[in-house]
This record gives sequence, structure tokens and C-alpha cells, in this order.
Amino acid sequence: MAPEASLTDRLVAGQFGTEGSDLLIGGIPARVLAERFGTPLFAYDAALIRASYRALAAAIEGFAGIHYSIKANPNPAVVRVLHEEGAGIEIASLGEFRAARTAGVDPAHMLFAGPGKRRAELEAVIGAGIGEIHLESREEMAHAAAIGAALGRRVAVAIRVNPVAEAQGGAMRMGGKAAPFGFDEEDLEAVVDAVAASPHLDLTGVHFFAGTQILDAAVLLGQWRHGLAVASRAAARLGRPLRTIDLGGGLGIPYFAGDGTLDLAAVKAGLPDLVALKAADPLIRNAHVLVEPGRYLVGASGVYLAAVLSAKLSRGQRFLVVDGGMHHHLAASGNLGQVIKRDYPVVAASRVGEPSAGPASVVGPLCTPLDTLARKVEMPAMAEGDLVAVLQSGAYGPTASPVGFLSHPAAAEVLVDGGEARLISQAQ
Amino acid sequence: MAPEASLTDRLVAGQFGTEGSDLLIGGIPARVLAERFGTPLFAYDAALIRASYRALAAAIEGFAGIHYSIKANPNPAVVRVLHEEGAGIEIASLGEFRAARTAGVDPAHMLFAGPGKRRAELEAVIGAGIGEIHLESREEMAHAAAIGAALGRRVAVAIRVNPVAEAQGGAMRMGGKAAPFGFDEEDLEAVVDAVAASPHLDLTGVHFFAGTQILDAAVLLGQWRHGLAVASRAAARLGRPLRTIDLGGGLGIPYFAGDGTLDLAAVKAGLPDLVALKAADPLIRNAHVLVEPGRYLVGASGVYLAAVLSAKLSRGQRFLVVDGGMHHHLAASGNLGQVIKRDYPVVAASRVGEPSAGPASVVGPLCTPLDTLARKVEMPAMAEGDLVAVLQSGAYGPTASPVGFLSHPAAAEVLVDGGEARLISQAQ
Repeated sequence: MAPEASLTDRLVAGQFGTEGSDLLIGGIPARVLAERFGTPLFAYDAALIRASYRALAAAIEGFAGIHYSIKANPNPAVVRVLHEEGAGIEIASLGEFRAARTAGVDPAHMLFAGPGKRRAELEAVIGAGIGEIHLESREEMAHAAAIGAALGRRVAVAIRVNPVAEAQGGAMRMGGKAAPFGFDEEDLEAVVDAVAASPHLDLTGVHFFAGTQILDAAVLLGQWRHGLAVASRAAARLGRPLRTIDLGGGLGIPYFAGDGTLDLAAVKAGLPDLVALKAADPLIRNAHVLVEPGRYLVGASGVYLAAVLSAKLSRGQRFLVVDGGMHHHLAASGNLGQVIKRDYPVVAASRVGEPSAGPASVVGPLCTPLDTLARKVEMPAMAEGDLVAVLQSGAYGPTASPVGFLSHPAAAEVLVDGGEARLISQAQ
Repeated sequence: MAPEASLTDRLVAGQFGTEGSDLLIGGIPARVLAERFGTPLFAYDAALIRASYRALAAAIEGFAGIHYSIKANPNPAVVRVLHEEGAGIEIASLGEFRAARTAGVDPAHMLFAGPGKRRAELEAVIGAGIGEIHLESREEMAHAAAIGAALGRRVAVAIRVNPVAEAQGGAMRMGGKAAPFGFDEEDLEAVVDAVAASPHLDLTGVHFFAGTQILDAAVLLGQWRHGLAVASRAAARLGRPLRTIDLGGGLGIPYFAGDGTLDLAAVKAGLPDLVALKAADPLIRNAHVLVEPGRYLVGASGVYLAAVLSAKLSRGQRFLVVDGGMHHHLAASGNLGQVIKRDYPVVAASRVGEPSAGPASVVGPLCTPLDTLARKVEMPAMAEGDLVAVLQSGAYGPTASPVGFLSHPAAAEVLVDGGEARLISQAQ
């Protein structure tokens, strides 16, 4: 069995299940969803979102809480599932603030990070009473202070720290080198002083983010340990306790052959040390630690369904041309930052378990070779109308894709919950 | 002077001009456009679109006409400029059909290509009287015939040919190997027979597309020569004359340091041979030859303007964080198919000609290192509110970008024509 097959098979068996030849999503056959809502379609299983949240919350209980980084999937129906579980929300724009409000989230339970916040965004969210602004530049510091002055109150802010190299880990390194994110760790004391000097800013926390798509518990724990040390340094300079310590997101999920799964038991086993470290410093002892995963909470819940338009041979190679593609799912096409293009787990959703008819490439309707969802994967015999499912598609799907490319319709999105499917975003 | 600077300088001097320190777009200072319409902003200079069209039309006069491939920029105001110049339109979706209709284009002057046409799209455009359907699969052939039967008329179709390797050239090779586009050239006779066998299809042409972003006239001429040979073969098998020969697009523009400019004089010089070749075959002698460029016609006309939010140093490196980024301009961030990330020409639009303050990276507001518009380019001293312009941004801009990424507003688009700027797409 190919390594690709084993990840796909594991996900199908472990997360979805089948009924006859049909992939099930939240207990509903993919074919039923496709008939009812049309294709292409993103379907999210609310139970899988809850399961991800609960497993992580249980693993880090007693150490940290969870803020959902809604950039991963800002659909308000998805946000609401996590809000109802108890997650706070990390936003990165006024648009995300609005999505979270639509989902019923109190601004006090949100924090705002991102390297390029516009003045109008800061005014809107501070005016609405957002929990904390994570400052990433001197310009933002000045704007937040001016807005606080205009409102006659102090604005709760955290300092986002761009970590030194020793803090590193993760597939995409976001620290240790020159970067536009936050303030260099080396300058922490000066930045603390600058924030503390403003009568209109209330320095309540630090935000430390060192990587993304981390699948190794030891890497994650190492970053968190370093983050606590940074928090201690900041608090020492400030001379009073911090209220929040944001250790960032970066928790990964398996996408490709050979990817493992983040071992939550190993994460949990490493936490007593960190809890002790935190308890040993009176200035951070009572701070609320939070992590802010995005894809980890929602990625596994989503399936992208597309229908075969043409099954063809070209120079001996099989192609399945489907009605969906990179315009809805840029990441699955390998064009969202991947240096080496590897396939997301793909399954013949209307023919699960049927024998392979040989390798086939799954391509979309756009007039470019970039529009490829899978390269020479084993697939059963398929014909026009059959369904292909791209798994692990709950994060960075339609909102991270060039939906206007070639002016095809947007994909609808549905949330499946308690055996019912509900449209949460229209095809246009 | 760095090679990057020379392409940028050449474009600024040759296409735009300056007034004091301000970049001009269609005679209007970038700063005036930014103040009036806000940033980020795409501005297109209609005069540059017309100039590109007229130069190409003059070079290929007597050999071929031009269909604009509107996937490059489907904004109806842009399409209208080219429609008024006399261009036909190549569409790749029902959405593009609607955009062309909005621009006032008669369906008879459109052709429809693309590897994954949906039945409903074929029904809509055939019912509306589209000029020609470019068939790319057996399934499409069957659908077009069935629609023709239902309408009681024959549907004009062309066969899209996936060329053999000898026809190759261009930066992105789209033929010569297994591909989902069209029918393999080796199978041409069988496909001609299949189309000719349908009483509801009228085989009027062939469509031959061998590459994209071609900057070498000899490569282009070689592909066109091969395309004429394919047309002759198809007509011979059909036993009657063809009406259209679509030689595809693929005409490139310079984006990166070291890119040349397609030499239209060299193209023109090579055409008498092709004209003679065509005239020698009575079955293609009277066929209308067309080319279907997209980016070549509109790419140079567009400027993406973004405002500096923060000018910062990290570990000794300069960063200009701007309010625009990959969510509006994926291609400029290097994430639209580029294997090696190179910078689009970038200029300090509010400080043109000022001395460099050293290399700076221009990054967007998204929380990812992917959101980079320029890497360590020489830039003058800049501060919050200054403007950065990304040139060569008229093609594959907002419609080819993940506009929902991090839920920032869409960029407005304006068309500058005759000294007037007009909003043609709203910021949302």
C-alpha cells in the first residue's frame, strides 16, 4: 500500500466512515450532500471540530486555555461551534472581528494580532471593547495610545515578540531571523519601557509565536518554555504581574504521506514542568496562558467535494477533470507556500473501497497546469458525475483561495451537525 | 544599478512618468488616486491597454486577429476598452461570458475554451449564440451535440489540440506531455471523425495552445507554424475548409530582472512565411487566424498601490509593512506558480527618484511570511503613509488572488482614461 493510501485510509476510517461505496461526512453520504447542495462543496463536520477542541483542551488543562485563530476558517457557523465550546478568539482584521461578532463572541474574549493593523481597524475594535491588542510596531503603539487618549481610557495591549533563533521549530519558521512580525526579542526591555511610558496603554501581556504546522510535541513544548521565559523577562522589566501570556498557535495536522499526528499525550506529559516554571515566578504565576491554534481545531473537519466532469487519457496517463480546483482550494493545489508540491489526502467519495484502476491525476477546470488537486494517485474507475473528496480541508480553504480566478462560482459551504446538514455559505 | 532597478526604471520612464516625486498613472499622481479612492488600489491606464493592443494588431496584421483572453482581467470596464478596439473575446467560464456581455460584447464574437466546462455553462452560452465552443473532451462533445439537438441546430465547435513535444516553447509548457487540456495531437484524425459524425456539431476550427509567458519571437513563430500544420491536417481529414484557426495566447511581458520584451518587429518579420504557408493550403487559405493573448494586452497597464503602515527594522533589516499584499496580488507575492520567488518591479510611488536608504522588504498585513511583495529591494527612506507601487499588475491581480484571506477588504479598482479616473470595482 502506498504511503498516501495509508493517511487517506486512516482518515476515512478514523474520522468519517463509509456506507457502501459512499464516504460519510457527519453520518451523511457525500453523494447526498452533493445532490442537495451541488458541487463543488465544502462540508464541515461539527463533531470533528468539537473533538479536536476537547482533546486539546483536556491535554493542556491546568496550563493554558484556547483562543481560536479564526483566520483558519472565519465562517461564523464554524466560529460559533468553537465559541460554544468555550474558546476565545484571535482575530487579525476588522473583517474577522465582524465574523466573530456574528458568531456571538463578546469583544472582551477576542485579541487582535497581525503585523499591519490599520488605524481604522484599531479604532473600531478598541471602541467596541476588544480584550487585548497585540502590538507589532511602534506605529501601532502610537495609534493605540492616541485612541485610548481620545476615549479617555487605557487600552489593554500585549507585546508581540519575534523570537530569537533558539526558540525555533515548526515547518515554517517565523522567528529567529529578521521578520516583520512583532518586536525583536532582543529589544524586549526597550519595548516594555516604551509601552509602560504611555498613560493610555495598559501592558497586560506578551505574545510569542515561533512556528506553524508543528507536529512534534517536543518542539512545541520547547517553544512554550521559551515563551514563559520571555514573559518573565517582560514582567520583570515592567515590575508588576502580567495578565496574559499568548504562546501562539502552530499546532499542526497531517496533510501528506509521512506526516505524523501531534502527540497530545506527549504534550500533556511535558506540562508539569512548565506549570512549575510559571508558578516559580510571582510576576507570571497568575497570568492566563493561552494558545491560539487555527488549523488544528478545524482542519480535519472539512471535506472539499468536487464532481468529475471528464475522465480522460492523455498519452497513456489518466486525468479526472473535476468541477472544483485551486480557485476554491489553493492550498490543496500546492500553491499556498509549499515548496514541494505534495498531495492532500484525496478519496473517490462515491467509490470508496473499489479497486484502483491505476494512477490518475485530479485536475480542476482552470486553464492552467497549476490547477491540480492530486498527482498520479491510485483511484478506482470513475466517470462523469462521480465524486472526489479532498480531506483535511477545513482550514485555509475558500478564504485562502483565489475564488475569482476564471470567474467560476464560489463553492457552497455546509456544516453537518447532529445528522443534519445546513448551508452556511452560498455558492454564488 | 541593480538589474531590478533597470526594469523598474524602464517601466517608470517608458510607461508612466513622474511629477516631482510622484509616480503618474495615466497622467494622475499616484498620491491623488490613493487619496481619492483609498488604498490598496489597482489602477489601470486605458491608454497603455490600447497601446498594447494596437502594437500587436499592427504587427500581426494580414495574418491574424486578436481575441482577448479575459481571464487575465475580467473587469468589464477593462474588457470594454479592448472590445472597442476591435478585439474578440475568449472566455473560460459562464462568469466570464457574463462579464463580456456586461462589456457589450456580442456572443458571436466570443469563443469558449477550458478543460472543465459544465453542462449548464454550455447550455447557457450555446443558447445565447456563442461564436464557437472549443471542445476539450469526449464528454463535452456529447453535451454540445445534445444541446444542439435540443435547440434544433448545429453548434459551431473547434477541437483543442494538446500539442506534441516538437511544438514546445514558453515558460510554462502546456503541451508535449500528458495533459488534461484538449485532445492529444496524435489522436487528431479520430477526434475530427468523431465530431464530424455528429449531425448536431459543426466543426469550424482548431485551437492550438503550446505555452505561456513567451518572450521569444522565434518560439512564438515556431508554435504558430506548427499550429497551421495541425489545422491543415484537421481540414484534410474533414475534407472541407476550416473557418477558424486559434493559435492560442502565451505572449509574455517582462516581470523580473533579466526578462526581455517580446520583439514585435521580429514577430512581424516572420509572418510572410506563415502567410505563404497558409495560402498554400486551399482548406485553410480562407480561415480566420486568431491569437488570444491576455496578460500581453493588460498586464503592463496596471499598478497596485499600497500605503506604508509601518517602517521597521528587525535584526538590522528594513521592512515596509504595507496595507496591501498577497490577498490582492498573489502573483506578485510569488505564490502563483512561481518555482523561484522573484520580485515584480516595485517603486516608491510617493518618493520616485529619491536616493535609496538601503534594501528593504515590502510585506503585507497578513500573518504569514508568504505575504511578501518585494525582497530586499533598494528603497528610499519611507514612513507611514508613503506609497508603494507594484508595476506590471494589470493581469492576474485581484481575480487570481485569495481576496478573503484574513478577511481584509477587497482592493478598489480604477480605470484612468483621458486624464480621468473612474471607480470600476468597489473596495468591500
